[in-house]
Amino acid sequence: MSTPEYATDLPGPIGGPGAGAAELVTLGETMALLAAPRVGLLRHMHSLHLSVAGAESNLAIGVARLGRRAAWLSRVGDDEFGRLVTATIRAEGVAVYAAVDGTAPTGLMVKERRTDTATRVQYYRAGSAASRLSPSDVDESVVRAARVLHVTGITPALSGTAREAVLAAVEVARAAGVAVSLDLNYRAALWDAATAGATLRELVTRADLVFATGPEARLVVSGGDETVLAAELAKLGPRQVLVKRGSRGVVGLLDGTGYDLPAKPVRAVDPVGAGDAFASAYLTEWIGGAAPDACLHAATVAGAFAVTVPGDWEGLPSRAELNLLGADSDDDVQR
Amino acid sequence: MSTPEYATDLPGPIGGPGAGAAELVTLGETMALLAAPRVGLLRHMHSLHLSVAGAESNLAIGVARLGRRAAWLSRVGDDEFGRLVTATIRAEGVAVYAAVDGTAPTGLMVKERRTDTATRVQYYRAGSAASRLSPSDVDESVVRAARVLHVTGITPALSGTAREAVLAAVEVARAAGVAVSLDLNYRAALWDAATAGATLRELVTRADLVFATGPEARLVVSGGDETVLAAELAKLGPRQVLVKRGSRGVVGLLDGTGYDLPAKPVRAVDPVGAGDAFASAYLTEWIGGAAPDACLHAATVAGAFAVTVPGDWEGLPSRAELNLLGADSDDDVQR
Amino acid sequence: MSTPEYATDLPGPIGGPGAGAAELVTLGETMALLAAPRVGLLRHMHSLHLSVAGAESNLAIGVARLGRRAAWLSRVGDDEFGRLVTATIRAEGVAVYAAVDGTAPTGLMVKERRTDTATRVQYYRAGSAASRLSPSDVDESVVRAARVLHVTGITPALSGTAREAVLAAVEVARAAGVAVSLDLNYRAALWDAATAGATLRELVTRADLVFATGPEARLVVSGGDETVLAAELAKLGPRQVLVKRGSRGVVGLLDGTGYDLPAKPVRAVDPVGAGDAFASAYLTEWIGGAAPDACLHAATVAGAFAVTVPGDWEGLPSRAELNLLGADSDDDVQR
Amino acid sequence: MSTPEYATDLPGPIGGPGAGAAELVTLGETMALLAAPRVGLLRHMHSLHLSVAGAESNLAIGVARLGRRAAWLSRVGDDEFGRLVTATIRAEGVAVYAAVDGTAPTGLMVKERRTDTATRVQYYRAGSAASRLSPSDVDESVVRAARVLHVTGITPALSGTAREAVLAAVEVARAAGVAVSLDLNYRAALWDAATAGATLRELVTRADLVFATGPEARLVVSGGDETVLAAELAKLGPRQVLVKRGSRGVVGLLDGTGYDLPAKPVRAVDPVGAGDAFASAYLTEWIGGAAPDACLHAATVAGAFAVTVPGDWEGLPSRAELNLLGADSDDDVQR
Amino acid sequence: MSTPEYATDLPGPIGGPGAGAAELVTLGETMALLAAPRVGLLRHMHSLHLSVAGAESNLAIGVARLGRRAAWLSRVGDDEFGRLVTATIRAEGVAVYAAVDGTAPTGLMVKERRTDTATRVQYYRAGSAASRLSPSDVDESVVRAARVLHVTGITPALSGTAREAVLAAVEVARAAGVAVSLDLNYRAALWDAATAGATLRELVTRADLVFATGPEARLVVSGGDETVLAAELAKLGPRQVLVKRGSRGVVGLLDGTGYDLPAKPVRAVDPVGAGDAFASAYLTEWIGGAAPDACLHAATVAGAFAVTVPGDWEGLPSRAELNLLGADSDDDVQR
Amino acid sequence: MSTPEYATDLPGPIGGPGAGAAELVTLGETMALLAAPRVGLLRHMHSLHLSVAGAESNLAIGVARLGRRAAWLSRVGDDEFGRLVTATIRAEGVAVYAAVDGTAPTGLMVKERRTDTATRVQYYRAGSAASRLSPSDVDESVVRAARVLHVTGITPALSGTAREAVLAAVEVARAAGVAVSLDLNYRAALWDAATAGATLRELVTRADLVFATGPEARLVVSGGDETVLAAELAKLGPRQVLVKRGSRGVVGLLDGTGYDLPAKPVRAVDPVGAGDAFASAYLTEWIGGAAPDACLHAATVAGAFAVTVPGDWEGLPSRAELNLLGADSDDDVQR
Repeated sequence: MSTPEYATDLPGPIGGPGAGAAELVTLGETMALLAAPRVGLLRHMHSLHLSVAGAESNLAIGVARLGRRAAWLSRVGDDEFGRLVTATIRAEGVAVYAAVDGTAPTGLMVKERRTDTATRVQYYRAGSAASRLSPSDVDESVVRAARVLHVTGITPALSGTAREAVLAAVEVARAAGVAVSLDLNYRAALWDAATAGATLRELVTRADLVFATGPEARLVVSGGDETVLAAELAKLGPRQVLVKRGSRGVVGLLDGTGYDLPAKPVRAVDPVGAGDAFASAYLTEWIGGAAPDACLHAATVAGAFAVTVPGDWEGLPSRAELNLLGADSDDDVQR
Repeated sequence: MSTPEYATDLPGPIGGPGAGAAELVTLGETMALLAAPRVGLLRHMHSLHLSVAGAESNLAIGVARLGRRAAWLSRVGDDEFGRLVTATIRAEGVAVYAAVDGTAPTGLMVKERRTDTATRVQYYRAGSAASRLSPSDVDESVVRAARVLHVTGITPALSGTAREAVLAAVEVARAAGVAVSLDLNYRAALWDAATAGATLRELVTRADLVFATGPEARLVVSGGDETVLAAELAKLGPRQVLVKRGSRGVVGLLDGTGYDLPAKPVRAVDPVGAGDAFASAYLTEWIGGAAPDACLHAATVAGAFAVTVPGDWEGLPSRAELNLLGADSDDDVQR
Repeated sequence: MSTPEYATDLPGPIGGPGAGAAELVTLGETMALLAAPRVGLLRHMHSLHLSVAGAESNLAIGVARLGRRAAWLSRVGDDEFGRLVTATIRAEGVAVYAAVDGTAPTGLMVKERRTDTATRVQYYRAGSAASRLSPSDVDESVVRAARVLHVTGITPALSGTAREAVLAAVEVARAAGVAVSLDLNYRAALWDAATAGATLRELVTRADLVFATGPEARLVVSGGDETVLAAELAKLGPRQVLVKRGSRGVVGLLDGTGYDLPAKPVRAVDPVGAGDAFASAYLTEWIGGAAPDACLHAATVAGAFAVTVPGDWEGLPSRAELNLLGADSDDDVQR
Repeated sequence: MSTPEYATDLPGPIGGPGAGAAELVTLGETMALLAAPRVGLLRHMHSLHLSVAGAESNLAIGVARLGRRAAWLSRVGDDEFGRLVTATIRAEGVAVYAAVDGTAPTGLMVKERRTDTATRVQYYRAGSAASRLSPSDVDESVVRAARVLHVTGITPALSGTAREAVLAAVEVARAAGVAVSLDLNYRAALWDAATAGATLRELVTRADLVFATGPEARLVVSGGDETVLAAELAKLGPRQVLVKRGSRGVVGLLDGTGYDLPAKPVRAVDPVGAGDAFASAYLTEWIGGAAPDACLHAATVAGAFAVTVPGDWEGLPSRAELNLLGADSDDDVQR
Repeated sequence: MSTPEYATDLPGPIGGPGAGAAELVTLGETMALLAAPRVGLLRHMHSLHLSVAGAESNLAIGVARLGRRAAWLSRVGDDEFGRLVTATIRAEGVAVYAAVDGTAPTGLMVKERRTDTATRVQYYRAGSAASRLSPSDVDESVVRAARVLHVTGITPALSGTAREAVLAAVEVARAAGVAVSLDLNYRAALWDAATAGATLRELVTRADLVFATGPEARLVVSGGDETVLAAELAKLGPRQVLVKRGSRGVVGLLDGTGYDLPAKPVRAVDPVGAGDAFASAYLTEWIGGAAPDACLHAATVAGAFAVTVPGDWEGLPSRAELNLLGADSDDDVQR
Repeated sequence: MSTPEYATDLPGPIGGPGAGAAELVTLGETMALLAAPRVGLLRHMHSLHLSVAGAESNLAIGVARLGRRAAWLSRVGDDEFGRLVTATIRAEGVAVYAAVDGTAPTGLMVKERRTDTATRVQYYRAGSAASRLSPSDVDESVVRAARVLHVTGITPALSGTAREAVLAAVEVARAAGVAVSLDLNYRAALWDAATAGATLRELVTRADLVFATGPEARLVVSGGDETVLAAELAKLGPRQVLVKRGSRGVVGLLDGTGYDLPAKPVRAVDPVGAGDAFASAYLTEWIGGAAPDACLHAATVAGAFAVTVPGDWEGLPSRAELNLLGADSDDDVQR
């Protein structure tokens, strides 16, 4: 009666039954996250929750949850925070390729919830192990075997060698015919707008898919509304450009055709991670050969899902869970 | 200046840099564990800690911590407890090959600490997904590529098909020249002594290495003290027999030579998992080609380590940590 | 100055001062409940809250809180979860008549809060002690001495003997002139709609008061809106039929007269237990001889109260607390 | 196959199957207990554990755990702490007869663990509801139906009316041929030695069984070692006198015969409640008609059990658990 | 590059660099607060959060957060709760002048969150150390050196000597030309309306600034709406009168000119402490010589801030944080 | 009846009643401390306790607990961790003079309890605000008004400017006739032995009192046992030299006379902070003019106390608590 099958949201190990090379590869820094357990001043907290945070690993986890094999390349310190980072990502079914650096610590991020609507963060990431990412950390065979390489605007902001690592990975991908996906992900705490704009522009010209918010797009191109920005970005090369507008939805210029999708109306609990959820679902569908409409729909649902659950990545949906959104709990309870 | 290297206690993914096939493979049930957070009646606990428990996965984690690649084969329910089991083991760097059974739940184990020295457990494992393990769940290529297949007396007690799965794995290993390791691990709650004795004898005759306590050995052979028991077990075929004597150490009959090692004196905090730690260190060293003395020494240290830290597997030592035992904290603090 | 009196929401022991036989008797299964402490995947929880859950004990507690003596008949395992169940219900002032079954475990229910609005449950209740309820567990003298016997559609779904126990209790009640109350409480996880429909119809014909939702009513009778369903159910025998419509209120056909009451508008926090709260308040007032209007009003207020507090039964109101609903906390604070 | 029986450590309700009148009745104050969760200054604790504390209810719970029906008479405030007290004691299977006093609060006890071996307490019990206990709170029918009335030296120290309530209960018991048991239980924070001595002497002359420590005995009679003290106390009337000597065991003068029992050697975790455990087991056996030797043995084992588990009453043993003491956990774990 | 400066929201010690005498002085009782950690019946809580509560210390902390030196005069018991009170207030940068009374305990307040909107409190403060406040506890030199003395209607309700202490402090202030600020703060649990009215009227006639709600104002003067009440209060002497109207804002009669400010619309989380926040910001600005408009604006913002964060005083804003209100967290996260 | 007095273990503010200038002044770094709540790998902790850690503030708190006024000079970041540091020290009654540096973060220390006896720490303190301490941070008036300036070997290891700040403070003290106390406190993680030895020697020659362990002393002078080391250190200038020998007690050369005191035998729970406790009690007694014997006795008792309670400073004794050590809790409980 039992019909065993390998869980689609927790793929087996590379080389295991039904497994194979990672379909999506990404690289970047994941830090240990120390988060206040409740709203209030950090100085009044008696303990902080320990977890991990990183835009690229969020995306890789999102892809794995939705059933595609994902790999994450990085560098961690030879410390327990580094082991926490790799163990957590590995637990979620993502293949981990992380060099252990005995001379630099794993980065830390401290998160305070000052009020219900205002979050404040503090970093201890200067000189972190991941800031020492360099081209030699890019496992070329992993990149070449993938369908998509995903990079963000955070990694090149970490250091000169990290920027070179991103560019090296992009070149390997392009040479191998692997699509390059880029989320601009501007972080003002890491670099200034001018430097960021130049580097991001360089990356946009090499990317096949680009994700951005309006303000992020304006670091690279000029334009008023999101439709113009998408068109300007597309002129730089990418076949697919998505400009996110928060609660106003998303504008897409996909293989020459324009799209404009409203956001799914939900009660937002935690906005962090919504962009990563959006991109992970979009890329998962895109890898599966779905039409632009279907890609956009899945991305919008995943983004909405992400804002309704706490945590940057913990609550990302499996394929089966995508339809939970908006379900009435009355029916599910007490089955 | 940085000299990156892949962490030895968290091996990279199979197929990743420096990686390869699992050197040790094991199969068995791992349950969700609900453990009382403190001493007292379970009815007075307001919450229970959620973790996982399983002798075979304990051993696989122990091997991975000490730097050898390990794989774990099993079956879990299509539920969150099943995902917890696979995620936890995967996080520890063990390759997971687990079929997801949509028709049976993941087993549960509830653990009460009635007094400081008396633990009581209750199982909800009858009909569990893992009890449905069958020969078709044994990935033959994984077994064939290993150096050691490790099985325990728990898995054959789960069901008829689980017993067949163990025997099938043993046959695959023997045919491929892979060493077979057996820990008798008798569980009175799962089967009676007579049935257990017959099945365990069958397995002993097929094993290369056997781990047992005195009472367990007596299920299979007759004999007074542990030296006699080891000799009787060795007559059934195994090249290496280890009979553990708790605080009195261990007796070994290794390739025809007798050994008698005292236990390392430590303050015991949690005796659960000591046997798994012992076997994991012994097998790790044995895979590495160490001499019997060195294998026994490592096993004794790991077993002592395990009883001094809480948790069945959480505190298992990495290679670097083995020397922590008995270190004076005064020197380490405030470095 | 002190005017001692026995607390009305915590009745003294049967036989104690001011006490007497239970006025309401019910029977059914109460499980140990392991509930996630926060929204998220169960696999990410590090501990689960331990409590108890059961529709019939919820109702009995609700009745006791409102000042009537209540008794609960059941069967528990000879384990700590069984002791937790009986201790918890006893603590709330309900008389407990529970056989202890040494051969079957107490059932478990695991509750995950996947999102703010979607709860998922998993049962470990197959073969539980309560599923072995049989007619011999029904203490006839307790039933005969009561004013109301309350049964639900959950108990007959547990097993053949449990179904017989319900029918036996109903016959004892009818023979003794004790009113029979029935809450259809359909649980799709326990039986299919056809089997349920036949059994529930059998019970409806024997009941004096019936509580149902629209979908539940349609398992037994045909009809479009709730008014029609109530009339159809009444045709089968019950003098009082209440069809609940969630946020749209309730329709009643009480001794031949139709009623239609809107729900009290509140901010719902936890919908579980609202039906039990509704029925407990209705029956408490009905036992006290209140008019239909007053019964309905109390039931509606209690149901609204239940959805505004967390927990299935923990927050049920005492008589004095019914008026708290909607009170402005500004006035109460800092008295 | 199932052979249902009513759990002996959780007696059914008075009037329920197999039940009957309470065999032991006691009266006294039980307070809400706010206890520091760990060693340290109270000012550094961020939360306090909430429970209940009272010597008489400890004893009643101990008796119920060992299988005899027990009742507790008291007075609580009309507040949540009062409801906590009655609910907790009721949950443990003790019949609760507690008047609710709308004009005085339930008493509080705050407990700090300054060091591993030094506990400090602070009371908020002056003017508490229980200090208003008076003869009218003594339910004479409950006392008359019992086999033993147990009182302590704490209750008469609460107030003049509480002292009268104790004397009234004693008179009712004596008139009805119910044995009177007294634990001197001197609390220096409540009254001075001289006043205490006079009142306790008055009670000793009316008691059949007396429990005391050496220093307590010396408040009433003169004498050097415990044997002399026991003899002097016996001269005042009691048939059975037990003078406890902590880790040196207990001296008994039982119906004219002297006994001297060493304490069971155990690792003490929490000494509070050992005296109550001792008396509860002694009285349970005595009610059952056991010989002095058997009574003393059970009392000694229960006392030893109590100091090895945390909490004043939470860890008291059931009859089946008495033999857990000193059991080796290795055998019980992983059954 | 570093430009060190002394933190404005945590002033150095009196006498330290940049410091000086307290600019605002207040006196009153601060109790240990035991608060339920979540919504539900107190009897179902397993632990209570430990903190402190007091209107006057709330205000002093609010003033210190906004950058003015504040001092708090009081009396605490010689117990850990007293040390908690002084340590907590001192930690927030307020100068503490508290006599330690070895003969009376520190008062307690227990706080239950019965529903999301209904809070219930119980006091153990009768006879507390602070109720023994007397004129000799008023450090005249501290009062004389201040710019404002702030008193509330709570302190004179504690006892006769506490009332005298308030009046003595007011006289010292008036004689020294220090402005007297009064928050009526009526507590019905402490005294009746008639007694309160007389005492508060006495204080209003001696005050320069008066804060009240409408119902509080009506204890002292007659009048329908808040504008009339403000005028009537002003007739008794105060130059500045502020009558708060909750979500409808505030009415002010400031140096003869009328003001009417709407409340800042926010999502209220915890209304307790809003009045203290309002007054603290008003007085801080007033001390700084701000115009009435600016004082009112700051007070309104601080009051709004206070209701959006949990805790009576924990979340009070620093000057830099005032602009957080209503900020969109999307921008702040992941800087 | 009440005899109010100002608490001796929580001195009032500088300038308050009975207060005055700090009698002991110290300077150094205090970090936010993130400590594992239990034994185990840090990666398995789900939350970390938040507190503060710093040898100099430990000592200042110890002095304040024992009744002397203490001041602490430092530098913190303009972040919540910095506010936590200053608030915590201020709460303990120590006067805080801490510059807030807007350009560098407060340092962090992460503490893992790998086994019961092995603690591991990781720092995030490179470039911290306190490492920027410089002579301009030394408030000369505070130093000049004191009786003792206490410095440690940690502060000069933080940076060149921090080393200059220590030397500057020492010069101010010497010029003003303020005694200089030095605890060598060598931290291998901060500097090498050679550099440390040179700097510490420089400080020893300027100190009046010196505290060291044997290994620390050997960084500065040569010698076999502690008596020789003390003599060698004394030759460099200090009038009082104390060489601690852990469980073997302490050797002192005090104003030319030799002392040799055994340690008080206790069960060690947490060795961290024992040295700070020792020095704080010694200096407190010394300031009070006690004889060498009395100083040594108090220091030994305080050191023993510190190792029996958890936390670096949380459990330091007040004067009244010094006699708690070894008290039998049986007598204190249930007063």
